[in-house]
Amino acid sequence: MTGSRQSDALRLSDNMSERFTDELAVESPLSIDIKHKSAIIPMGITMRTPGDDKDLAIGFLYSEGVIDKFTDIESISLSEDRISIAIRDEVEFEIQSHRRHTITSAACGVCGKDSLTNLHKLHSSDLNSSLRIHSSQLSTNLLFFTRKQSLFETTGGTHAAVAFSEEGEIIATKEDVGRHNALDKLIGHILSTDSLNSEELILHVSGRSSFELVQKTIRAGFPILASVGAASTLAVDLARECNLTLVCFLKVDSMVIHSAPNRIIH
Amino acid sequence: MTGSRQSDALRLSDNMSERFTDELAVESPLSIDIKHKSAIIPMGITMRTPGDDKDLAIGFLYSEGVIDKFTDIESISLSEDRISIAIRDEVEFEIQSHRRHTITSAACGVCGKDSLTNLHKLHSSDLNSSLRIHSSQLSTNLLFFTRKQSLFETTGGTHAAVAFSEEGEIIATKEDVGRHNALDKLIGHILSTDSLNSEELILHVSGRSSFELVQKTIRAGFPILASVGAASTLAVDLARECNLTLVCFLKVDSMVIHSAPNRIIH
Repeated sequence: MTGSRQSDALRLSDNMSERFTDELAVESPLSIDIKHKSAIIPMGITMRTPGDDKDLAIGFLYSEGVIDKFTDIESISLSEDRISIAIRDEVEFEIQSHRRHTITSAACGVCGKDSLTNLHKLHSSDLNSSLRIHSSQLSTNLLFFTRKQSLFETTGGTHAAVAFSEEGEIIATKEDVGRHNALDKLIGHILSTDSLNSEELILHVSGRSSFELVQKTIRAGFPILASVGAASTLAVDLARECNLTLVCFLKVDSMVIHSAPNRIIH
Repeated sequence: MTGSRQSDALRLSDNMSERFTDELAVESPLSIDIKHKSAIIPMGITMRTPGDDKDLAIGFLYSEGVIDKFTDIESISLSEDRISIAIRDEVEFEIQSHRRHTITSAACGVCGKDSLTNLHKLHSSDLNSSLRIHSSQLSTNLLFFTRKQSLFETTGGTHAAVAFSEEGEIIATKEDVGRHNALDKLIGHILSTDSLNSEELILHVSGRSSFELVQKTIRAGFPILASVGAASTLAVDLARECNLTLVCFLKVDSMVIHSAPNRIIH
């Protein structure tokens, strides 16, 4: 498995001390460049778990608004730690608005106000999917996808983003050391698969719902986001503003709904 | 409490559906500027939980190598969503090397190689603290700090970074929606408190140990990092290279040690 690596470690318990071989989630840098009209524009470097790099880059460029659809991409060239995406000449974008003024990684790196403005540019209408789902289906999904997190099962060190159909079928599972990467990988996969439409899918994530995670979800068009963890204030504000159904603290026997509860039948 | 805000929500469980008032962790943007030799240099915007903004900014500038000690700072001016730190004229730094090419927040945002190079510039010697601690003390610390996470207790949505003395006394607890922010807040607090020396302290974090978290820990000089979650490959590589004792999956009755185990008595 490319996503994990074995490593010698020491386990201490009670009065025991034993050497064993641990399985670690791989974290490794990937540079993303855009090629557009003969210019090469470095988009930055992300620390990710290798394995779905094309999906990651496609999802990232879509989340950032550089592309609006998969066919905006002319070609993709991938080496071990660098991916270069050529955008069709006729696609217009201002690169300046896609540069983030990020200072720390886990700190999310987007200004609430600026991002809200950008988001509205990208996704001016609210989510209006008429998808409805029974609350018990969300609980079933949770049980199901927890068993499908193969990297998490071996390493305990990755996040997952999972798309389900209305009927509870897993459409795709993506894992990464970064939870935003996991979601970008999933978005990239859906965007590049003709038969998939995010407006008909339910998004589950293993972690918390931050502002940026909600932002990516809305941009991608998922009507329902169900997270195992908590939501932040800004995440809830944005979800309400854009009519996203935001479910948090999802457990097998309970959940908390912060916005657009009409999509959840109970 | 400024770190949390009440919000109406719906809780579904079994056949029950009830409205209640949830407590959400606040996520809100903070701009950090540096003033140096009459220039104003924007360092970026971070999404953070308000409350320890000065500590956050000081810790961030230290982690980034902009300052090497608290007295490099001439003055700090703070408004609701902007902090401006004036650096003394005699402090030399190249701003270019402090700009990150970050693309996604939780994606860590640092290139392994470049950061390793920078880190060695900042912290050329390995950690050589002779601190030793009994494994049972780490377990006791865990129990103790879990009870001290006041924001987490009310919101379930924050990470914590906690410094303990050798004797198991809590020196400081910092919480934030971002785990890197929580650590920067803690580092800023220690740096600006004359009586504290990180080489004599044990660092506990509530989440996982990524490369960037280990990097901040080494830069700050903590000899032992104990995390509740897993470590990534790059985190373990860096910890070994710099002689940091990296403890993961810390539980009350067991733990895994990845590097420099000599500091843990068992």
